[in-house]
Amino acid sequence: MSQELENTLKVGRQAFAFFQHGLETGDWKQFLDMLTEDFTFWFPMGKFHGLNVGKQRAQEFFQYVTQAFSPGLKITSLDRVTTNETTVVFEFRDEGMLFGEPYKNRVAVSFDVRGNKICSYREYFGSDGKSN
Amino acid sequence: MSQELENTLKVGRQAFAFFQHGLETGDWKQFLDMLTEDFTFWFPMGKFHGLNVGKQRAQEFFQYVTQAFSPGLKITSLDRVTTNETTVVFEFRDEGMLFGEPYKNRVAVSFDVRGNKICSYREYFGSDGKSN
Repeated sequence: MSQELENTLKVGRQAFAFFQHGLETGDWKQFLDMLTEDFTFWFPMGKFHGLNVGKQRAQEFFQYVTQAFSPGLKITSLDRVTTNETTVVFEFRDEGMLFGEPYKNRVAVSFDVRGNKICSYREYFGSDGKSN
Repeated sequence: MSQELENTLKVGRQAFAFFQHGLETGDWKQFLDMLTEDFTFWFPMGKFHGLNVGKQRAQEFFQYVTQAFSPGLKITSLDRVTTNETTVVFEFRDEGMLFGEPYKNRVAVSFDVRGNKICSYREYFGSDGKSN
């Protein structure tokens, strides 16, 4: 494994651990600290559908996620971690309540790594939110 | 790059080329020939939603895809290819007509490679089918 690949995997895994912590607890500080200032993300639907630009926008998004999935979204299995020199893709399943209704999904998130930060991510849904 | 990683990437890319050919033309033979007999796949929604088991089921699915997206679904950009020793993830955008209505999506497909075949895949949607 090249040093670049090793670093990308390490940074990606650290970011994912903080991402999971944010989903579960609503505390996003450590995850947000890992984002570059020019961070961008793509989300599949709702008010953050499409391309979102900037760290401020990310802050708003994760605050919204925490409100939507109160009291926290649980990752029930991490199915695959796939890496190259710049990108780490996590395939996982999650479960919780979405605005009070039972919610389950299969999700892929693809993190782009630059140095020891995440500069962008893309999220994809593998289910309809009712089963995973 | 290890020999195993190199083989996985090569087999994954070949399968993806045949997958793209199937989407565009409705001719799935070469892609289906690359699937193991115990092939399984996950699809996000509709009548093939969830886990699907067996090559026969895959045949039915891709026939359905061709009917749904007549006259063919076009991959407009391949955004990321991410690999480890067993899995290749393709992030791409597509565009076409779904039962006569304009359709666009961002998609991630994750192929699991065994030898020179694909033994399973998981599909994820990054958009709502109306924009990518």
